[in-house]
Amino acid sequence: MSTNANIANFNGQRPVIDPHDAVLLLIDHQSGLFQTVADMPMPVLRNHAAALAKMATLANIPVITTASVPQGPNGPLIPEIHENAPHATYVARKGEINAWDNPDFVAAVKATGRGTLIIAGTITSVCMAFPAISAAYDGYKVFAVVDASGTYSKMAQEITLARVVQAGVVPIDTAAVASELQQTWHRDDAQEWAQIYTRIFPAYQLLIESYLKAQQVEKDHEQLDSVRA
Amino acid sequence: MSTNANIANFNGQRPVIDPHDAVLLLIDHQSGLFQTVADMPMPVLRNHAAALAKMATLANIPVITTASVPQGPNGPLIPEIHENAPHATYVARKGEINAWDNPDFVAAVKATGRGTLIIAGTITSVCMAFPAISAAYDGYKVFAVVDASGTYSKMAQEITLARVVQAGVVPIDTAAVASELQQTWHRDDAQEWAQIYTRIFPAYQLLIESYLKAQQVEKDHEQLDSVRA
Amino acid sequence: MSTNANIANFNGQRPVIDPHDAVLLLIDHQSGLFQTVADMPMPVLRNHAAALAKMATLANIPVITTASVPQGPNGPLIPEIHENAPHATYVARKGEINAWDNPDFVAAVKATGRGTLIIAGTITSVCMAFPAISAAYDGYKVFAVVDASGTYSKMAQEITLARVVQAGVVPIDTAAVASELQQTWHRDDAQEWAQIYTRIFPAYQLLIESYLKAQQVEKDHEQLDSVRA
Amino acid sequence: MSTNANIANFNGQRPVIDPHDAVLLLIDHQSGLFQTVADMPMPVLRNHAAALAKMATLANIPVITTASVPQGPNGPLIPEIHENAPHATYVARKGEINAWDNPDFVAAVKATGRGTLIIAGTITSVCMAFPAISAAYDGYKVFAVVDASGTYSKMAQEITLARVVQAGVVPIDTAAVASELQQTWHRDDAQEWAQIYTRIFPAYQLLIESYLKAQQVEKDHEQLDSVRA
Amino acid sequence: MSTNANIANFNGQRPVIDPHDAVLLLIDHQSGLFQTVADMPMPVLRNHAAALAKMATLANIPVITTASVPQGPNGPLIPEIHENAPHATYVARKGEINAWDNPDFVAAVKATGRGTLIIAGTITSVCMAFPAISAAYDGYKVFAVVDASGTYSKMAQEITLARVVQAGVVPIDTAAVASELQQTWHRDDAQEWAQIYTRIFPAYQLLIESYLKAQQVEKDHEQLDSVRA
Amino acid sequence: MSTNANIANFNGQRPVIDPHDAVLLLIDHQSGLFQTVADMPMPVLRNHAAALAKMATLANIPVITTASVPQGPNGPLIPEIHENAPHATYVARKGEINAWDNPDFVAAVKATGRGTLIIAGTITSVCMAFPAISAAYDGYKVFAVVDASGTYSKMAQEITLARVVQAGVVPIDTAAVASELQQTWHRDDAQEWAQIYTRIFPAYQLLIESYLKAQQVEKDHEQLDSVRA
Amino acid sequence: MSTNANIANFNGQRPVIDPHDAVLLLIDHQSGLFQTVADMPMPVLRNHAAALAKMATLANIPVITTASVPQGPNGPLIPEIHENAPHATYVARKGEINAWDNPDFVAAVKATGRGTLIIAGTITSVCMAFPAISAAYDGYKVFAVVDASGTYSKMAQEITLARVVQAGVVPIDTAAVASELQQTWHRDDAQEWAQIYTRIFPAYQLLIESYLKAQQVEKDHEQLDSVRA
Amino acid sequence: MSTNANIANFNGQRPVIDPHDAVLLLIDHQSGLFQTVADMPMPVLRNHAAALAKMATLANIPVITTASVPQGPNGPLIPEIHENAPHATYVARKGEINAWDNPDFVAAVKATGRGTLIIAGTITSVCMAFPAISAAYDGYKVFAVVDASGTYSKMAQEITLARVVQAGVVPIDTAAVASELQQTWHRDDAQEWAQIYTRIFPAYQLLIESYLKAQQVEKDHEQLDSVRA
Repeated sequence: MSTNANIANFNGQRPVIDPHDAVLLLIDHQSGLFQTVADMPMPVLRNHAAALAKMATLANIPVITTASVPQGPNGPLIPEIHENAPHATYVARKGEINAWDNPDFVAAVKATGRGTLIIAGTITSVCMAFPAISAAYDGYKVFAVVDASGTYSKMAQEITLARVVQAGVVPIDTAAVASELQQTWHRDDAQEWAQIYTRIFPAYQLLIESYLKAQQVEKDHEQLDSVRA
Repeated sequence: MSTNANIANFNGQRPVIDPHDAVLLLIDHQSGLFQTVADMPMPVLRNHAAALAKMATLANIPVITTASVPQGPNGPLIPEIHENAPHATYVARKGEINAWDNPDFVAAVKATGRGTLIIAGTITSVCMAFPAISAAYDGYKVFAVVDASGTYSKMAQEITLARVVQAGVVPIDTAAVASELQQTWHRDDAQEWAQIYTRIFPAYQLLIESYLKAQQVEKDHEQLDSVRA
Repeated sequence: MSTNANIANFNGQRPVIDPHDAVLLLIDHQSGLFQTVADMPMPVLRNHAAALAKMATLANIPVITTASVPQGPNGPLIPEIHENAPHATYVARKGEINAWDNPDFVAAVKATGRGTLIIAGTITSVCMAFPAISAAYDGYKVFAVVDASGTYSKMAQEITLARVVQAGVVPIDTAAVASELQQTWHRDDAQEWAQIYTRIFPAYQLLIESYLKAQQVEKDHEQLDSVRA
Repeated sequence: MSTNANIANFNGQRPVIDPHDAVLLLIDHQSGLFQTVADMPMPVLRNHAAALAKMATLANIPVITTASVPQGPNGPLIPEIHENAPHATYVARKGEINAWDNPDFVAAVKATGRGTLIIAGTITSVCMAFPAISAAYDGYKVFAVVDASGTYSKMAQEITLARVVQAGVVPIDTAAVASELQQTWHRDDAQEWAQIYTRIFPAYQLLIESYLKAQQVEKDHEQLDSVRA
Repeated sequence: MSTNANIANFNGQRPVIDPHDAVLLLIDHQSGLFQTVADMPMPVLRNHAAALAKMATLANIPVITTASVPQGPNGPLIPEIHENAPHATYVARKGEINAWDNPDFVAAVKATGRGTLIIAGTITSVCMAFPAISAAYDGYKVFAVVDASGTYSKMAQEITLARVVQAGVVPIDTAAVASELQQTWHRDDAQEWAQIYTRIFPAYQLLIESYLKAQQVEKDHEQLDSVRA
Repeated sequence: MSTNANIANFNGQRPVIDPHDAVLLLIDHQSGLFQTVADMPMPVLRNHAAALAKMATLANIPVITTASVPQGPNGPLIPEIHENAPHATYVARKGEINAWDNPDFVAAVKATGRGTLIIAGTITSVCMAFPAISAAYDGYKVFAVVDASGTYSKMAQEITLARVVQAGVVPIDTAAVASELQQTWHRDDAQEWAQIYTRIFPAYQLLIESYLKAQQVEKDHEQLDSVRA
Repeated sequence: MSTNANIANFNGQRPVIDPHDAVLLLIDHQSGLFQTVADMPMPVLRNHAAALAKMATLANIPVITTASVPQGPNGPLIPEIHENAPHATYVARKGEINAWDNPDFVAAVKATGRGTLIIAGTITSVCMAFPAISAAYDGYKVFAVVDASGTYSKMAQEITLARVVQAGVVPIDTAAVASELQQTWHRDDAQEWAQIYTRIFPAYQLLIESYLKAQQVEKDHEQLDSVRA
Repeated sequence: MSTNANIANFNGQRPVIDPHDAVLLLIDHQSGLFQTVADMPMPVLRNHAAALAKMATLANIPVITTASVPQGPNGPLIPEIHENAPHATYVARKGEINAWDNPDFVAAVKATGRGTLIIAGTITSVCMAFPAISAAYDGYKVFAVVDASGTYSKMAQEITLARVVQAGVVPIDTAAVASELQQTWHRDDAQEWAQIYTRIFPAYQLLIESYLKAQQVEKDHEQLDSVRA
């Protein structure tokens, strides 16, 4: 067998993200819906969604956003999305729950001319999974960013992971999207990527702070407080 | 490959629920068996099962129920099932553990003339999984609502999820069933669907309450208590 | 030593609730604040708060409610409070965070002529703890219903429990309040009390359903399905 | 596709246990190894293993046991295994970790003339998974009873579940094995099967106790204590 | 200060159990109420309650049991209580929730002539706590066996622990009761006490099994399987 | 008894924070030590510590900071502390683990002329608890902000909570400090306090976003997307 | 009040460890009993116990050890105890469960001429708590190292914490013992103390490794791999 | 179907490790990155990684290591890797995140002439998963040691497990790698393998200690302390 018989539309290619073929879809990351998230701490989800937007900006990847009836209890899109991806396109829907059922949304995806979709959405089993399954059926290579999506229980997240994998979608976490897009630390914007990781694993911020201090102490020949007179 | 090589009986169709082809099977949701449920809080399960019944009613989908020896320690069906789906048909069995082994039950399914089964049952690995696997083997498209089923441990639920997926059954959560049936908020009964979601993620009820109050304050030019004289 | 040297204002009396001396204070149980609750599932808190209101009604105990700026993001009082305690008095504040800092609120308590306060509030460390500590300082016997209050973390709840106990307040859970008020099953409204317990430990509802069915089977000489021909 | 393209050796048959073709293999359930179990409470594992032995006895299924160097720190087989399956055959190995590498063990399996293996072993990823994968490769239909096996972490259990499923083994929980073997409550030994379930979900024992008491109260016209004079 | 200023009725004595002054009270350990227990696994509670009964038997301590309306949904006493303490006295109540409100119960305690009470009850905050607080107020030395009592949430258990400690009751776990009664391994019934510990920490049973096997191997000069030819 | 017999140095006063008498001590919140924190998610601790600094600024309360050998592996102070409290005074120590053992530190506290200390420190049992116990012994009223301190296990946090309470220190959570300092929403800087709460319970930020949107929709008579043509 | 009215035998002194008055008692840390530990991961307990032994050695504090029938299933003392405290004295008991009931043990304590006991023991509620309570009653200042003791459930640990606090014993965690003994980083053996902390919070080892590397990179002007040609 | 249709590059062979064809790749196990690990306790990960290195040494398997910019915040390789595998080859990269993108690394693998890769890396979804997927695509048989890799959340680990399985990689736990390499206890270095297991399930160390003591007691006819005069 080839290594990707269970993955939709890769046809023997290595099942990884090609940054030049990718579009990022951020679906229904809204203030109201975020109150229903229970499979991970909401601030973690918020950081992951913002990190995705930022990395798309750094990697020059198109971003398409949409919201489900933001005038009602679902609430407005969280502002970090467009703040971190100023180039993102917002597509208003007309009540369709599956964004892929909205012709404007599909048209916006097609207009990018790209064939690889990176999808995150809240709630996971609906706003992420429905477009992911639909797009895979329509011939796209699809990556589902499960931990930049949020849902009402850990069990619901696990069920959805199983469903999208069964449908040939590639599951991926936020850090892996970052690293597949970044590819190497040998690049001019390396520090900006380091900042992205601090949003995904916050201990990384502590590492940077401690690292810089340790080097500064050595450089300045600073004495330890405990050995001062 | 097509996107659903691992899914039974879809034959290249998009692996989603077609409301016009669907039947809902609610199996052995009984007061005694519910005492054994430990993979999720029992009241959550109870709400999910009731929500399924209600959404079938809204979406005009046939519902078939059954129970395992309700005269014994397993106890009676929880009343919410038939309260929320008054059109449901109850099929008594004769001791068969797998509902699909009961000819009356299979006949009731066939009589609907539909080919897509949405199945929930307690306990999950038995009352849901056995009919799901059996029906998939008999040519049905099967959706297993894992979080409207309940079982004796989280591990047992995870094992069962893996088993039914391996057998070509589509795993799905309660919210996704609702959204696949509802399809759009652009419908007259939108508020009734909103009520269903309050049973699946209870924070949604708070959202609605807060939303209505916020709008009322604006509409009535009501002053904040904290700025009253 | 006497048995209550660490309890404020009991002065050697048995540290239990005297229903004839008790007032129930339900403080800031609001739709917005409930979104911040993380020390217990929010629906559990909602059920406990409603149960307290109902048991006060059954036991003829005065209820005083209040809210913190319900015109803002904190949101409206959840409706179950007054639905279950139609005799409750609502006192509007003027921005004071500690309800005990509001003269109208204290006056309403004094007007009952009672000296024992049963207090629940959201969030626990503020809306419950501040009035509890203040009232104990002012000479009241105070019972803090920790699990009918909600707060932002389990740790915050534990800290608050330690603080109010240190201040001489008696900690109590929702079930214990019910039982101290009910006192005996030998009373005409026993079934209404049983309903209250189904809100506190939902398995009790299953017990009642199974119990009634088991007796009905015996009474009707109903045959087990599994032994039918 | 057929419903079992991912399952080894079923060749289009319904992927369920045929009691007439099944053998139960209980591997390395030893007192020392049980001290290393951390994916479930050890007493739960102990109950599940004993329940498997008992149900094999009730269903007339051959049982083969073995142990890994029981003279050393791994310790002796737990006694419940042979107590509940007096007909079981014990096969001593010569240090081979994979029981399937021991010719006597494989010979004992072959001697049964059966083609379906129900396997549990401690630790899961080794003592259960190695023989399961080996037997599937050798043409057996294999069911892996993941929650009657035990291992050193929940993560290790999850990894092993994924591995055996990938290899075409059917994952199953202890309750599902019981129900696939029992098939119906319409049988003379129904009460003995009920006892088996009390070992898998102990709340079932409470259900039976409460059920019998409720019926007895009705039958004896026993008065409630709370309404006695 | 003395070491027990916060403990009721010890008056400067070491706050430990004097087996010659102790009575064991087991209150409302009923099959129905056990379905509501969620602060620990129910089988663990069941084992602890049975272990208490057994240790009272070994230590010649009087046992008094009672139940709350066992003719209703609360269900019958679990049978292990009286099986392990055949000398126990059962006192029927007339609906009083606090056993200490029932004159027959208090009379039975007084009839023992002892002043130290070891109390366990389900649910903890009511059936254990009410009599414990009442008895401490009435001058008894009281030990509350929190983990041989069960209640509807971990939080409810923690609240109750704080309440009884505040009231001067000594909190204790099941193992500590055993060891305070046993006092020394230098006694003829040491093996019976060892059996009691297997009910409290089940790994102890594995230890005994492994220990005996290891000694037998040495005694019999049994060869390791792995070094057999 | 009075309500605060167990609280050090309040002498019959209500055991709450008097903002005019309070000093905030933030001790050893360093990038290296934060890697050892395991009793709460580190980002939560970081937010709480920053929130304390900010509220001291809003309430005009002196802030004193210090660090333990920041030139070594313990790492530098996290920058948020001084960013949010620009008026804070930093006191370097000479290796003393207990900040209260450093004369400069104690002198800085005394120089404020205040008698109430609000203390947070990492790690909790050392950097917070030692100065808290020492200061209480020296006559200060001490509030220990347990959830703005961090330590290596939940158990270590619980032990420390018990120890400081035993020593007469008042335990408090971050939200309660905020509310005791803020006192009322009827103040000009109310929105700044609201921002502080978003750092303590992040759902509050969602509440504000949803609230503003809901009011804007009403004000603008914005149509729901789902009812657009 | 003074700050330590609830603490036994401090009589107004600051309730901290005086290294010159302290003895370390390590009781029943045996290989068999360690299999029953479930309130923390056993390797963590093992590290904490060894760390206590080591810090006593560094601080020149007497150590007394004992074991409960190490010839039986309880097993031998773990070797790390005496390896890290070569100066420790072992006292054999004669079956007494409470080490304080053994005259030789009490005599060994008295022979040190010290009045402050630091006690850890497995299992916590028995082997640690009994001697702690007994010694407090006999006039010693007692510190109970709860997380260098182990027991069969988190609940049992919490109950025991409450019990010993109630009896006037000071609860303390392993890190706090280390820091109270070490007192300052301004000492020649500072690196040895740093090693002790790596056993209590293992992330500290990573901190040291990263710190040294960061300084070495600066000192050696080592180039980052990612900027090499 | 064959038993391994879902596994890359096995082509009908039994999907197990052939020690003679295997290479161990340990990727980016660095002190800084280890601070970000949250899917398992870091010391457990550290033990598993060291155990892998040791077992490769015992089994004569080549080991290749690499690190991601160890001169920066990611920190140095943990020293245990090369200490336990002195024969390991270290390959420096030039910033490539996917080790498989570094030609030297791939060349080192090819130079071994082996076709089976055992891969562990931190963080899991990147440092382990990228090379695993890449190598499977390039024709290698790949085993991913998920619990000797570490990542920032349990959810991220679960997503990665699903992704690598979907790509045809075999998931495996650390214990299973050990046992597949060891194969039998009938070998001269059996005790060294036993030591490896003590690093994977630390209770095994207790088992060995207790076992040896129990045999020594029997051999020496040592009397139990509790039966000494």
